[in-house]
Amino acid sequence: MIDPRVASGLRDIPPSVMIPRERMLASFRKTFASFGYLPIETPHIERMEVLTGKGAGSDEVLRQIFDVTNKGGTPGELALRFDLTVPLARFVAKHVNELGVPFKRYAIGSVFRGERPAKGRFREFMQCDFDTVGTESALADAETAQVIHDALASAGVAEFTITLNNRKILDGMLDTLGLADRTGSVLRALDKLAKIGREKVADELRKGDAESTERGAGLSEDQANRVLDFVEQGRGGAEVLTQAEETLGAHPRAADGIKNLREVLSLLEAAGVPSRRVRIDLGLARGLDYYTGVVFETTVNGWERFGSIASGGRYDNLASLFTERRLPGVGASIGLDRLLALMEEAGWLKGALTTVPILIANFPGVDPVTPVALAARLRAAGLGAEVFPEPLQVGKQMGYGSARGHKLAVIVGPDERASEVFNLRNLATRQEQKGIPQADLETAIAEALKAIEGTSS
Amino acid sequence: MIDPRVASGLRDIPPSVMIPRERMLASFRKTFASFGYLPIETPHIERMEVLTGKGAGSDEVLRQIFDVTNKGGTPGELALRFDLTVPLARFVAKHVNELGVPFKRYAIGSVFRGERPAKGRFREFMQCDFDTVGTESALADAETAQVIHDALASAGVAEFTITLNNRKILDGMLDTLGLADRTGSVLRALDKLAKIGREKVADELRKGDAESTERGAGLSEDQANRVLDFVEQGRGGAEVLTQAEETLGAHPRAADGIKNLREVLSLLEAAGVPSRRVRIDLGLARGLDYYTGVVFETTVNGWERFGSIASGGRYDNLASLFTERRLPGVGASIGLDRLLALMEEAGWLKGALTTVPILIANFPGVDPVTPVALAARLRAAGLGAEVFPEPLQVGKQMGYGSARGHKLAVIVGPDERASEVFNLRNLATRQEQKGIPQADLETAIAEALKAIEGTSS
Repeated sequence: MIDPRVASGLRDIPPSVMIPRERMLASFRKTFASFGYLPIETPHIERMEVLTGKGAGSDEVLRQIFDVTNKGGTPGELALRFDLTVPLARFVAKHVNELGVPFKRYAIGSVFRGERPAKGRFREFMQCDFDTVGTESALADAETAQVIHDALASAGVAEFTITLNNRKILDGMLDTLGLADRTGSVLRALDKLAKIGREKVADELRKGDAESTERGAGLSEDQANRVLDFVEQGRGGAEVLTQAEETLGAHPRAADGIKNLREVLSLLEAAGVPSRRVRIDLGLARGLDYYTGVVFETTVNGWERFGSIASGGRYDNLASLFTERRLPGVGASIGLDRLLALMEEAGWLKGALTTVPILIANFPGVDPVTPVALAARLRAAGLGAEVFPEPLQVGKQMGYGSARGHKLAVIVGPDERASEVFNLRNLATRQEQKGIPQADLETAIAEALKAIEGTSS
Repeated sequence: MIDPRVASGLRDIPPSVMIPRERMLASFRKTFASFGYLPIETPHIERMEVLTGKGAGSDEVLRQIFDVTNKGGTPGELALRFDLTVPLARFVAKHVNELGVPFKRYAIGSVFRGERPAKGRFREFMQCDFDTVGTESALADAETAQVIHDALASAGVAEFTITLNNRKILDGMLDTLGLADRTGSVLRALDKLAKIGREKVADELRKGDAESTERGAGLSEDQANRVLDFVEQGRGGAEVLTQAEETLGAHPRAADGIKNLREVLSLLEAAGVPSRRVRIDLGLARGLDYYTGVVFETTVNGWERFGSIASGGRYDNLASLFTERRLPGVGASIGLDRLLALMEEAGWLKGALTTVPILIANFPGVDPVTPVALAARLRAAGLGAEVFPEPLQVGKQMGYGSARGHKLAVIVGPDERASEVFNLRNLATRQEQKGIPQADLETAIAEALKAIEGTSS
């Protein structure tokens, strides 16, 4: 016997998780499509040089690459993708002439990283990305946040907060302190603020000097305090932008960033995104080199410890590894698996282990054409129905339905068959309505389902 | 610059193919779910021994396996799955105790085979599988054909034929000729009947002898003719079963197979599957060793040269590699990519390069909050809408919409903004309706879309 386990760091996704996951993916696809994002798919396998080109992935990600080799192939030539952004860059570089710009695409698929296995961390996970390529418009920036909002709201995520920043503001602030050359090390330190607190970040900002910023940014005590004050006071609503304008309005790059966030806020308001769900955080950096304008993070209120479940931002040039053509853009990625883990822990996922509300019994001694025909009628009326495949004792069939969460069972015994009626059992309450004419099947069941929904909500 | 090409035998799927593909997948999922099949997902990467266990895949498939190795991992331990059936067997063996039987699952995902690249053959392609495990009921057999039928009919495949057989009938027939020990080689020859014709198959049936059946079955001329007559006369409707019963009714195994197909036909009729779409072919074998009862193939009428687009059958024991527990079942797989290739060639895929019917212009000099707010209203009314991200010349924006297949454009210039109206342009006819009150947006657009649909159908 071969052990039926999965490889380390991988997992099977059972129906109890897949049912809400499929529901959520369908909802995301619908949201993306309703904004005119177009679906694309790229192979799971890419050529190695595409994935390891300069700047394609961080050193950490590159260490986690899975090599792929087929029999007779040369090792080192192929690998599994580690995100959907590098494949997008390659895709756009290859197809931009046919597609034209602006090009809005979404892509949903598995990515692979050979991380050390740990609880809740898997080597294969799903990303849901959407991007608008070929425009620098603030409208596309705002739309990206709007899509995050609509996707999460439509998918039933209760309350959440989209945090916005524009990298140019922080750049401008550091420039006014004469620290433009130390942006990277300052951002690396600031990234840890939520985790390790102000004191330790201040230490790190002061460590090192301008020449050696490996382990610190080499700031003076005063500089470190001004950076930390700016960041800590830079959280809130539109008023944060007014404050920033007073301090930094004269700096062209910072002013640009402030103007962009103002436009984004006003467009989000016009789009009906509730202002309680949008927040500015002038310290938000999201990685070090990639993003150049607006950046986004999204946390679920009360579940911030799960980290950001939808993140992204604006980049100056997507596909510089593959084409001379400059392609600015903006996009975000929803971390479906992290979101589902959160929703499961929060108890927000419905527990049913079935995709249909109705079980039709296969009554011993009754020709199965009867349940099969009734089920086909229900499906034609848009009501999912499952026929139990074997004529077991009816009690056992009802047990199967109760365990899986079917709401109603249709039972046709020999007497019911003869008089063309059926019995309808509520599998939760065990109440049974007897002798309903089979001609009334669709309406009787629609009504019974409505009544159940009414009582459960 | 890195060449943005994909690796040999792989491909990008652009929006023009992805839009109908997503529509079709959503339709398949809905059909599978409406019968109570539950979604599961297994990793793309499996342990090598799971994939290469005895009988898991044919020698050909095993030669095509892609090895997977992460940095620091041991080569030869992991590989990409080549189908969804071996992962199902592993999954069921691992989880059957929690899940119980009958267990009905569907799985949709990419599989990988390092075949020699050729036109229309890819090394990564998508399979859509559904199976019922843990029952020997004919109801599950019929349901499998019914799901193929409903999935294809709902997805807009015009006319198609589901061909049925039960392997026991052919087994019985060969047994009556004293050829039970040569089933494998006879089936191998019969499999080629459609391709090479009766004469050449007859040659192959006569070649070799009972001892050495490598290149032939060693049948006498009379045996070969009786087998071929049986197979060639065994195609049609229920009358074929009556004939077979006359010849083979006394053979218990054949009688079993005939009874099963009778039940399947009667259940399919009860389920409303039109009889013109169902056909018996007593020569249909579908592979040599795996299937043990009913088998299915499906071809699109007039497009038979694309081969079967949905195939499957009953197996005696799914997971014998992984568990002592006997798990009989029945299932089928829809070859989505082959079906799409066929539909594309047949011209059945709609050509639009957009997921939304409405483009909202971003009029130069008009604050983009107006188009963004109008778009949000349309989406809230269930109408997809895209706002052009940049305030380019309106003519260019209309060109973008016409090229992608948007049906209507909403235009709000400065005058329209001031008087709270909008202009509505039909992007196909270029007719424009001017000065519609913005308050009537949703109703005016719903009406205009209805009118367009009315003229195009």
